[in-house]
Amino acid sequence: MASQNLRTPGPTPLPSAVRDALARDMINHRGPEFAELMHECVDGLKWAFQTQHDLLILTASGSGGLESIVVNTLSPGDKLLAISIGYFGDRLIAIARAFGVDVVPMRLDDGHAADPQQIADALRADPAIQTVFVTHNETSTGVLNPLEAIARAVKETRPEALLLVDGISSVGSVPLQPEEWGMDVVVAGSQKGWMVPPGLAFVSVSPRALERSAQARLPRSYFDWQAHRRSAERGQTPWTPAVGLFFGLQAGLRLMRDEGLERLFERHRQMAAYTRNGLVELDLRLVADSDHASPTVTTAYVPEGINAKELLEALRSRHDVVLAGGQGRLDGKIIRVAHLGWFDQDDLDEALLALRIELNKVRAADSSSPATARA
Amino acid sequence: MASQNLRTPGPTPLPSAVRDALARDMINHRGPEFAELMHECVDGLKWAFQTQHDLLILTASGSGGLESIVVNTLSPGDKLLAISIGYFGDRLIAIARAFGVDVVPMRLDDGHAADPQQIADALRADPAIQTVFVTHNETSTGVLNPLEAIARAVKETRPEALLLVDGISSVGSVPLQPEEWGMDVVVAGSQKGWMVPPGLAFVSVSPRALERSAQARLPRSYFDWQAHRRSAERGQTPWTPAVGLFFGLQAGLRLMRDEGLERLFERHRQMAAYTRNGLVELDLRLVADSDHASPTVTTAYVPEGINAKELLEALRSRHDVVLAGGQGRLDGKIIRVAHLGWFDQDDLDEALLALRIELNKVRAADSSSPATARA
Repeated sequence: MASQNLRTPGPTPLPSAVRDALARDMINHRGPEFAELMHECVDGLKWAFQTQHDLLILTASGSGGLESIVVNTLSPGDKLLAISIGYFGDRLIAIARAFGVDVVPMRLDDGHAADPQQIADALRADPAIQTVFVTHNETSTGVLNPLEAIARAVKETRPEALLLVDGISSVGSVPLQPEEWGMDVVVAGSQKGWMVPPGLAFVSVSPRALERSAQARLPRSYFDWQAHRRSAERGQTPWTPAVGLFFGLQAGLRLMRDEGLERLFERHRQMAAYTRNGLVELDLRLVADSDHASPTVTTAYVPEGINAKELLEALRSRHDVVLAGGQGRLDGKIIRVAHLGWFDQDDLDEALLALRIELNKVRAADSSSPATARA
Repeated sequence: MASQNLRTPGPTPLPSAVRDALARDMINHRGPEFAELMHECVDGLKWAFQTQHDLLILTASGSGGLESIVVNTLSPGDKLLAISIGYFGDRLIAIARAFGVDVVPMRLDDGHAADPQQIADALRADPAIQTVFVTHNETSTGVLNPLEAIARAVKETRPEALLLVDGISSVGSVPLQPEEWGMDVVVAGSQKGWMVPPGLAFVSVSPRALERSAQARLPRSYFDWQAHRRSAERGQTPWTPAVGLFFGLQAGLRLMRDEGLERLFERHRQMAAYTRNGLVELDLRLVADSDHASPTVTTAYVPEGINAKELLEALRSRHDVVLAGGQGRLDGKIIRVAHLGWFDQDDLDEALLALRIELNKVRAADSSSPATARA
């Protein structure tokens, strides 16, 4: 099977070292080999998260990681200020509501980042809020929130509140510093910058978030942090872990260490700028506010009169270039190009060229079609 | 790295076709390639489950599958008759209690199977029970419950009750027939007879269990069957699936189809009998009642005076034979030998020989030691 140029914001392409690791035979997840493997993975994750907080590895995708931050920090009726700048922020709100949390939603228009001042005001207006959720990088719109400033605003306005962060498409590709900035919980997912297939969620948990989880009364079992923490002391997980994905993660982390965090962050920043320029040159309108454009995924509106699904299908079937479409209210309206994990400028050039060819085709057909000309 | 003879009841060894599949590069989980992959996996699972019920694939280990059967069929305060014949039956009870279910536990001694008559009596004694849980094969003790007779007893005594089954270490290796026997929900896990790494749970759900889930009021999001069912109509999962494990599952199911269900079941039955005989020949006392011995895992007590952990470590480090120890109250008291998935008689011969050598060593040391002789 010919390899595709997979430009979706997860799953991302796998380097051969990771693929070799995924093909390893199984080991006993209650034995010393697994304890050693898990130890190296936890160490590497702490390095990439730039934290000394506890680091838990859940066998679940990112949405399971998000459920874990709700059920471990909140009790029935607790108020949660949940800042959503898109589809995945909305997902966290839906999870929290499903569990009976009293969500105070703060929703921003697509393409815009959250405003630290507005968050501080919302906290001042409601003294009952003791927990705040925010997305770091909104994968559905390609917007990077100003997380350091948001964390500062929360800390200054309500120092005792916990700050929970969805870092699923940022951690490992974009800098963040849990302790220095003041983030209690950060979730990530294996299929993003880690260059590993989906199936693992990573959660960094501060000491006071762990304390909170010992008291929190939402029902939980599979995602219970306390159970994970107890098992971690023996180099195990409470439930059978996705052993093969741990092998892949070990290999991916080694590659990341070889590249180095700073170079890795810089590569993502540069390639994001390159992609934005490339899309603008194709006369596409970008979704994200340019001050808050994501280093890992770039989004653009599909021009009027062009069918997004047909465009994506043409790219896939004729060029082996796989972009992502829009989600929720942006379904059919935007395309998303990921520059995340294992890729280089050639992959982006190929994707941009394919896009140019297909857009030109449709535009040429449009301008020559009397029906369209009338419309 | 030299390959181990992995005789644990999951993870199980991986055939090379599965390992090759696990090393495949990623695809878009929202594209046509994944829809096709998922379709083949669901089809193959229905074949092995011998059912036409809905078949959901969750990205989680078996314990996540167990949580899903609790949160999708029950409401706060509902009564659940939960039959436990060991560690994993107890786990289901703990999950149900964590979610506020009113559990009516029926616990049997280690090594014993559940009694259909006793279950019928318990149902007659409590008309409020509308849901029954039972383990098919208890992995911790190596006991196979008489599931067909249990299902008949439930059906005759309380036809409207849902029967939920933990089939994690049975389905795919041991026959069962959800529709004919009357089982509403059956859970399985990828790291057992399917020859795939851990990380996927499979759940077959009857139409009336699906109806129940539409009404059930326990909080849930990640494990919500309704969300999985809606996405399945488009060949997708609601949350990012463990794509690589689907590749492995596809390969594992093709191997299972090549062998054929009847031959596969017969191989497990024969090898289980072979293992039981082998352990008895080593003067070990079996844990499971011989009428209900498991086709997938055989357990034996460690003789008095022998340290189970040291024995297991000697087998691992000197012979590359990895057996499992006991769990919960059987920790340090038993050993478990799996004959599950991809293995043959040679693997068992090697394990039994290693066990003979190590037992002989300890027994020889014991009989020559004055301290032990006195004890």
